[in-house]
Amino acid sequence: MRKSILLFVSLFCTVAWVKAQVITSPDKNLTLTFALKDNGVPTYQLDYKQKSVIKSSKLGLETKDVPSFLDGFSITKTEQNTFDETWSPVLGEQKNIRNNYTELLVTLAQKAVKDRFIRIRFRLFNDGLGFRYEFPAQANLNYFIIKEEKTQFALAGDHKAFWLPGDYDTQEYSTMTSKLSEVRGKMKEAVTPNASQTTFSPTGLQTPLMMKSDNGLYINIHEAALIDYSTMSLNLDDQHMILESFLTPDAVGDKGYLQAPTQSPWRTIVVSDKATDILASRLILNLNEPTKYKDVSWIKPIKYVGVWWEMITGKSTWAYNNLESVQLGVTDYAKTTPNGKHAANTAHVKEYIDFAAKNGLDAVLVEGWNEGWEDWFGKTKDYVFDFVTPYPDFDVAELHRYAASKNIKIIMHHETSGSVRNYERHLDTAYKFMVNNGYNSVKSGYVGNIIPRGEHHYGQWLVNHYMYAITKAAEYKIMVNAHEAVRPTGLNRTYPNLLANEAARGTEYESFGGNNPDHTTILPFTRLMGGPMDYTPGIFQTKISAYNPENTSFVHTTLVKQLALYVTMYSPLQMAADLPETYAKFMDAFQFIKDVAVDWDETKILEAEPGDYITIARKAKNKDEWYIGAITDENPRTATVTFDYLPKGKTYTATIYADGKDASYDKNPQSYTIRKMKVTSKTVLKQALASSGGLAISVK
Amino acid sequence: MRKSILLFVSLFCTVAWVKAQVITSPDKNLTLTFALKDNGVPTYQLDYKQKSVIKSSKLGLETKDVPSFLDGFSITKTEQNTFDETWSPVLGEQKNIRNNYTELLVTLAQKAVKDRFIRIRFRLFNDGLGFRYEFPAQANLNYFIIKEEKTQFALAGDHKAFWLPGDYDTQEYSTMTSKLSEVRGKMKEAVTPNASQTTFSPTGLQTPLMMKSDNGLYINIHEAALIDYSTMSLNLDDQHMILESFLTPDAVGDKGYLQAPTQSPWRTIVVSDKATDILASRLILNLNEPTKYKDVSWIKPIKYVGVWWEMITGKSTWAYNNLESVQLGVTDYAKTTPNGKHAANTAHVKEYIDFAAKNGLDAVLVEGWNEGWEDWFGKTKDYVFDFVTPYPDFDVAELHRYAASKNIKIIMHHETSGSVRNYERHLDTAYKFMVNNGYNSVKSGYVGNIIPRGEHHYGQWLVNHYMYAITKAAEYKIMVNAHEAVRPTGLNRTYPNLLANEAARGTEYESFGGNNPDHTTILPFTRLMGGPMDYTPGIFQTKISAYNPENTSFVHTTLVKQLALYVTMYSPLQMAADLPETYAKFMDAFQFIKDVAVDWDETKILEAEPGDYITIARKAKNKDEWYIGAITDENPRTATVTFDYLPKGKTYTATIYADGKDASYDKNPQSYTIRKMKVTSKTVLKQALASSGGLAISVK
Repeated sequence: MRKSILLFVSLFCTVAWVKAQVITSPDKNLTLTFALKDNGVPTYQLDYKQKSVIKSSKLGLETKDVPSFLDGFSITKTEQNTFDETWSPVLGEQKNIRNNYTELLVTLAQKAVKDRFIRIRFRLFNDGLGFRYEFPAQANLNYFIIKEEKTQFALAGDHKAFWLPGDYDTQEYSTMTSKLSEVRGKMKEAVTPNASQTTFSPTGLQTPLMMKSDNGLYINIHEAALIDYSTMSLNLDDQHMILESFLTPDAVGDKGYLQAPTQSPWRTIVVSDKATDILASRLILNLNEPTKYKDVSWIKPIKYVGVWWEMITGKSTWAYNNLESVQLGVTDYAKTTPNGKHAANTAHVKEYIDFAAKNGLDAVLVEGWNEGWEDWFGKTKDYVFDFVTPYPDFDVAELHRYAASKNIKIIMHHETSGSVRNYERHLDTAYKFMVNNGYNSVKSGYVGNIIPRGEHHYGQWLVNHYMYAITKAAEYKIMVNAHEAVRPTGLNRTYPNLLANEAARGTEYESFGGNNPDHTTILPFTRLMGGPMDYTPGIFQTKISAYNPENTSFVHTTLVKQLALYVTMYSPLQMAADLPETYAKFMDAFQFIKDVAVDWDETKILEAEPGDYITIARKAKNKDEWYIGAITDENPRTATVTFDYLPKGKTYTATIYADGKDASYDKNPQSYTIRKMKVTSKTVLKQALASSGGLAISVK
Repeated sequence: MRKSILLFVSLFCTVAWVKAQVITSPDKNLTLTFALKDNGVPTYQLDYKQKSVIKSSKLGLETKDVPSFLDGFSITKTEQNTFDETWSPVLGEQKNIRNNYTELLVTLAQKAVKDRFIRIRFRLFNDGLGFRYEFPAQANLNYFIIKEEKTQFALAGDHKAFWLPGDYDTQEYSTMTSKLSEVRGKMKEAVTPNASQTTFSPTGLQTPLMMKSDNGLYINIHEAALIDYSTMSLNLDDQHMILESFLTPDAVGDKGYLQAPTQSPWRTIVVSDKATDILASRLILNLNEPTKYKDVSWIKPIKYVGVWWEMITGKSTWAYNNLESVQLGVTDYAKTTPNGKHAANTAHVKEYIDFAAKNGLDAVLVEGWNEGWEDWFGKTKDYVFDFVTPYPDFDVAELHRYAASKNIKIIMHHETSGSVRNYERHLDTAYKFMVNNGYNSVKSGYVGNIIPRGEHHYGQWLVNHYMYAITKAAEYKIMVNAHEAVRPTGLNRTYPNLLANEAARGTEYESFGGNNPDHTTILPFTRLMGGPMDYTPGIFQTKISAYNPENTSFVHTTLVKQLALYVTMYSPLQMAADLPETYAKFMDAFQFIKDVAVDWDETKILEAEPGDYITIARKAKNKDEWYIGAITDENPRTATVTFDYLPKGKTYTATIYADGKDASYDKNPQSYTIRKMKVTSKTVLKQALASSGGLAISVK
């Protein structure tokens, strides 16, 4: 997808020793300094407009079986390059992405280890820094085991942080907002229960970690291109405000098995003095490789409904019967008594297909269609699903025929229950089954503890597996939406059939007690930095008890905020998550979901402050239409929507979906107004948002 | 394969509590007593002709997540049955096997655990006892995790034992012979180095464990039908001479994940006052299920040569070049420099094919044919082989054509290097590749530590894998010879495409320092109790230095003992392991290997004493030919070979391959004589065997 290389300059510097290497970003705002400190320890520091982002921080890796890569280094070579190209993602927030950086490549040798050498590659963009360790092929380095990566991020102060507890298995926590110095005290509160969770430190933090300094810098730390390596969390030294990499171990405590030539993922620091710049950053995508897929014509955005929310709320069930224990191939489902609440039955799925077809949606997700749901959860059951055997009331062939006749795709569902060996054993057969039955996308799930036992969701073993599932899917031209997998790191550039991930607390938690009103004002600054999220917005029936009298949860947003999320939460895969019967009561509001695009030519971040509010405008792909979403936290506010990105002199009709004057997420969430107005590039709209309210505008 | 049911009687005994349950074997020699002891602990004891085999011993399992199955039991039901049938194995030591036992099925309930119940099923044969735990489906028992199985075998004395150190990963140890009380003192000496090994106790022992009591009983403890359960070792309480089950843990220390309804493998005790009866026992096969394969016509015995011994000795290499590190799909082998010692090249393989065809053998094993051997060992390398990509000098299509033209099969080789996930990912493709290229059998290998790391060769995870590989092979009509897999437990009855296993110290160790002269006089009493072994006999060039000057090992047998092993070491898969160039020098002796059968109608154990000697006569399947093998340990002896199994009045020609008068394994191993004589059913032959010598006779 490379569009054009504007500039490529190489500067070689081959002196044997250099005291400090300094590069600046193309716009000169960022300065990266690399230096060896006492005893040959590699260090780097990062400054933004004369403000310290990262103070001098150590780099290195501790190994288990060979001498560590920590000290005793001397610089044997440095190279500087600049790079500037513009490329186009297959699907994305904008049609053209500029990849422009200054690169410093440092070769470091350890004399005491037979001149063994590594390289550290820094790429300094206008929006931040990426760097990684590279381990070239050489006589004295083949295989090695990582005990711990020792990459430090020494912060310049006790920043405000938007954080999740560091965990090897889940990111489905509510984001905590506090000073870094308060993390330790709030950790217990932060660690809420999950189906699989393994925290590791009283100051352990996950990435993407979003921070704001007292002097006005927005700093985001994450990683890019996580491939066959353990996921990085951060451990905070809260005395010195130093974050240090903390990798996910395997079952025996090792943190990575590598073979040279190889490299670490990129460690990323996105920084700006404007919060909007953080959301506009494409640094993580730029650090990933261009796609290797030759044919990407089969990769399409998807707007879908699903047989899902009714089970999440407890109205229906995934399981066909009420048995507590079943065995695949042994239990004869046809002879069991149905529980009468099984949603994924042929007739009911047809209703969803009808709804999708009638409203111009692309697809219908169906969960609970296959045998095994009676005891799938929490048993660490090895042979839990076979991914091809439907329940007696789910007619695969008939639904294939029916959906095809209406030009609707059914989205396959592969819940693995964490039993990864079992999934891999069935993967080829399951994908073939999909192709044979007209499915072209799959939602996969990894709920619960991993089998093989002792492995973690974010360890190298699983990171390798997720990639295996994605690349094998590509062989079958299947798109993947992986839930409970590792949080993304921009891999959708290279593997664009990875449409989206979950890997955070999604809308489902609105039925499990609720998400905080500020939740979606933070996620774009954290989880979404790595890639699209299948957040599943669109819940109009905000009282869950309407579906299940025993469920007292309610959605912690207004109805209009649910609409706004289709714009503020980027994903090429967007669900209209509520039930057709509910949408039928609100078809005027549903019109926005019908209209809104899921793939974009341009994106403008109009307003943003993590934890408070976000306003974004996006131009639909290949259409002269714009969609605007604005959201706020529990505090009502007035959004200022500018339209200066519209072509000058042209008048558009804007349809404005706004919170009602009396709306609030907790008292009156379903109050909304819809009005139309003419807008031009000069229009500035001031619009009130309710408590945890929103604003959605279509501009045509 | 059931031939006839002679008798089937059921006796139901439904009293609520019974003090002790006693059953006797069909021949009345064995008595099994089951009783609940204080606090409702299940116990059993076993007696043979009034001699104690197993004193009152506890039964039960300790669990992790549900109340244990250890005590608090009451008997709620007992059932007694007798059973008698004769069945025919697909391949075997005899055409007809009698399966005759008295059964006691005890149902035990735990009142304190909501009347949760289990069953213990005892089957008492004339040659010993099998029993297992059964966990029926019930409301109060679904999933459970085994912390430890607590099955005891309280011995009646300090027996002489033929033992291996208990280990989770290998059985490739030399057998120790000592009193049980001496195990602790000899453990250090017993634990010799291996590529993957994990001992667990100073008195840990493997099964099959062969023992001999001072009062003349031969007792063998093992297990039958090990499926989806952890392998059992034994831990010795050397104060009280109590052996207790000790299961293989997974990576997190758990010893089994079970879901009711299910059962444990059978725990087996073969006993007699005659050592020959131990070798004649078919108890373990009888405790396995009949085969479920509908078509077994594709399962054939195999006599083969192989491109193997020349690598084992160091004369040639598996690897194509001398690189220390390669990456599949990255390393371009065509551009590397061959090391000039790569054995699996097209021309050389054709020489083996020619030899096999000329001498009436069935197949040629070829190891080292595929990319990846340069760094396959000891790296715990995940993507180590792909099982389909040949080295540049190995022409798959041409060798397929050439072998087929000579009616020879090539045996595929799948070394996994312990990287089991990688193997499973490629399994279907690899098997398809085999079918497409004319292979119908595979030797698989599991050298080195297991990946996923922390799992063990003998844990439930791997036990499940081995079965997966075997059953999936059956879908492709492929026969399996698995090395470094778990030792067999009679599963070849149910899955007859499992032709053989290694799972013990094979002939390869003759090139790694040598096997003890008594080694093969013990193996039939230990390792072979569970099933056939691919021992790979037939080494005529007993000085390894003849192939590799740097290798000072020598074979610890005479040449004739190598011949005798084809009879004494039962396997439907037998290798002529030495090099064709060597056989060419000894074609008169090689004639026995050409002639000897590998599948049998009848087997007669003529003489046997574990650790000392074995003499066996077998009738070739569907032929009026008998083959006799006799071996001895380091002590020369005179074998007494009777022929009373021959039809009366008929005269046969026996060709007698005997050690030369001056032969000995260490001084003059290649000294042998070949003579012919007429034999009838009345003939009794006394024949001298040299030190670690043998005797081989063909009778036609």
